Amino acid sequence: MKPSGYEEVPVEESLGRVLVTDIVSNTNIPDQNRAVFDGYAIQSSNTINASLAAPVMLKVIGATFPDQNPSKIHASQTVFAACGAPLPNNADAVVKIENIRLHEDRIEVRSPVSPWENVALTGEDVKKGCLLMKSGCVIRPQDVGLLAGVGTESVKVIRKPRVCIISVGNELVKLNKKGAPGVVNNYALIISNLVSEWGGIPQLFGIVPDDLQFIKNAISAAARKADIVTTIAGCSVGPKDLVPDAIAALTGKGLVFHGVGLSPGKVMGVGIVKDTPVIMLPGHIVSAYAGFYFLVAPLIARYLGLGDQALSLLVSARLDCDIEAKSTATFLRLRLTYSNGEFKAEPIHGGASALTTIANSNGYIIVQEKKVLKKGTLVNVILFDRYELANTLRELTEGF
Amino acid sequence: MKPSGYEEVPVEESLGRVLVTDIVSNTNIPDQNRAVFDGYAIQSSNTINASLAAPVMLKVIGATFPDQNPSKIHASQTVFAACGAPLPNNADAVVKIENIRLHEDRIEVRSPVSPWENVALTGEDVKKGCLLMKSGCVIRPQDVGLLAGVGTESVKVIRKPRVCIISVGNELVKLNKKGAPGVVNNYALIISNLVSEWGGIPQLFGIVPDDLQFIKNAISAAARKADIVTTIAGCSVGPKDLVPDAIAALTGKGLVFHGVGLSPGKVMGVGIVKDTPVIMLPGHIVSAYAGFYFLVAPLIARYLGLGDQALSLLVSARLDCDIEAKSTATFLRLRLTYSNGEFKAEPIHGGASALTTIANSNGYIIVQEKKVLKKGTLVNVILFDRYELANTLRELTEGF
Repeated sequence: MKPSGYEEVPVEESLGRVLVTDIVSNTNIPDQNRAVFDGYAIQSSNTINASLAAPVMLKVIGATFPDQNPSKIHASQTVFAACGAPLPNNADAVVKIENIRLHEDRIEVRSPVSPWENVALTGEDVKKGCLLMKSGCVIRPQDVGLLAGVGTESVKVIRKPRVCIISVGNELVKLNKKGAPGVVNNYALIISNLVSEWGGIPQLFGIVPDDLQFIKNAISAAARKADIVTTIAGCSVGPKDLVPDAIAALTGKGLVFHGVGLSPGKVMGVGIVKDTPVIMLPGHIVSAYAGFYFLVAPLIARYLGLGDQALSLLVSARLDCDIEAKSTATFLRLRLTYSNGEFKAEPIHGGASALTTIANSNGYIIVQEKKVLKKGTLVNVILFDRYELANTLRELTEGF
Repeated sequence: MKPSGYEEVPVEESLGRVLVTDIVSNTNIPDQNRAVFDGYAIQSSNTINASLAAPVMLKVIGATFPDQNPSKIHASQTVFAACGAPLPNNADAVVKIENIRLHEDRIEVRSPVSPWENVALTGEDVKKGCLLMKSGCVIRPQDVGLLAGVGTESVKVIRKPRVCIISVGNELVKLNKKGAPGVVNNYALIISNLVSEWGGIPQLFGIVPDDLQFIKNAISAAARKADIVTTIAGCSVGPKDLVPDAIAALTGKGLVFHGVGLSPGKVMGVGIVKDTPVIMLPGHIVSAYAGFYFLVAPLIARYLGLGDQALSLLVSARLDCDIEAKSTATFLRLRLTYSNGEFKAEPIHGGASALTTIANSNGYIIVQEKKVLKKGTLVNVILFDRYELANTLRELTEGF
């Protein structure tokens, strides 16, 4: 696999990106002691004996605002300080304007004021030199604000991996060719949307016919410009399944593996061409889905330095019938419904090429080979993506 | 509130959008009976008695491909059918090429073939006239594929609400004004990122000084062009808090409400200007966060026709200490850690203006007024956003 690339992005555009460096604050927040409210900056020690009967009188010698440098007061003096203004030298508190009485050029303080009252202290929120964020963290909305707050203008983040998607098959026709005979190439569009969701940049290569040389050329070109290549279809064991041959011819060393003990999805596989992983996704959509979650999503996460399941959402649910896996493990699609305080998981059966079985379900589990799961078993269902929450489960999120 | 607007978007760009109309399929998938593998199209009834000892011989009269119309065979004939090719008339099965022996212009079938073997039947996945998706659904990756598969080129979806963000305060300075005295306007950037995450289009209005006329002009201009307006700061009860006055002056009817029983966040409020909800978010960031989750996020969801908690992720966690709310309900920030098979929730205390308390936590709960929650209580922590999963919790998703 190619090493992860890096890029510098403006802080304003860094949401969801993965930091490459530690971020150490080179400033304090607040940068200096500042007034938290509009008021009068004073020396608190002068007010210890202040009372309604014996108010302390202080002379107003000026006013200070947020965009100014600190002024200075003496014991019997005060300065009007607008919210956010730097505290004048020698002052250690601010009396709110609603708590004083103003007489021309003097104010009357009628109760004791504590040291640092209504003052935001230097570095109270962020201390200069402190570690703000660690390398490897995903930048959240609050982090964007924090980075901008300490004056960071741009951050070094892991480049999003480019995932090139090659559709293989003579039978395929382009989308939007209304009435054109053949099979619409809609699976590439699904994989492309999944790639985006997992943090990659999808690149749609287009359709390549079932021809060894064409497939070799396509994979070779894609491997040059992408970080990860996925092919869809042409990776089974029939005479027209030429993707494994193409990869083997390009590498001279064969595949890393071809075939897994999972159904649907059995014929998925991986080769390495020019340091670029080439993921062979099967041509049936359910198998391709399984291949995406097992091979593509983890590779994207690895490239980004995240855990394999970085964006996976798991929901605990109770099987509503017995399940038995055959001689291979099963990629079982499940529809979730909520009742009586818990999720119920209903298996959605159907052929490996039935896209509606994915559309009618919300997530999946892997049932190990020959394993029997009894009705009522609690399973962790892996949601297909975050949109499952907003959709079928939208009134049900309380159950999480 | 203004009615939700609609727009037509290409299917390829419809991920995450909310459908306005039901989608009924006007085609079958497959559109006609098609070969599932490369093979020979036959009449299965001819092969009932086929065996190794007495193979059935069929004459090859042609070949058919996915982009052709169905050909036709008679009982003793066969046609080579490429994967995806329409089944010839009179044929009801396909024998895989690996299961026949080819002799010049004839094939030898050596075992019985079942009716419809290796054939994808018309409408097997999607039936013409069936309801594919309901109005109000969020479009997921698999739905994009399904819509494209039935030939839909564009869909009518709810327009994303435009949320205009006005920052109020003399003390604020623009981002990237390094060394400029004052307080950096980073809170607007946070709210803008949260708006995007919740499905709105943020519009940064910029900074407006603490001046009634300026604030009135800003809100009035924003209400003309946005679906939702939020102001940040200037909504407390001090002499410089002019946003409530500005809204009242614009409406002539005062506010819908001003002040809630939640701390931090007490001074949030809502007015309606030109049919546009104007949300007053408090100037302290923790209070503004509370205001976002309580007023802005639900309004965006409502505009999109989704449940209030459409994207909220809840994690069940055990409090690691006693919690006691004061006389108002508390917006309690919590850091989650995982050990011994469950999440532990640790309260992060700090002032309402401490952005680091948000950065150091993963979500929040509301503790009702005067309520005491004992150490060990299980609470549903609402994650700030989905990035909390990839980040602090990235190795921990098994706990969901």
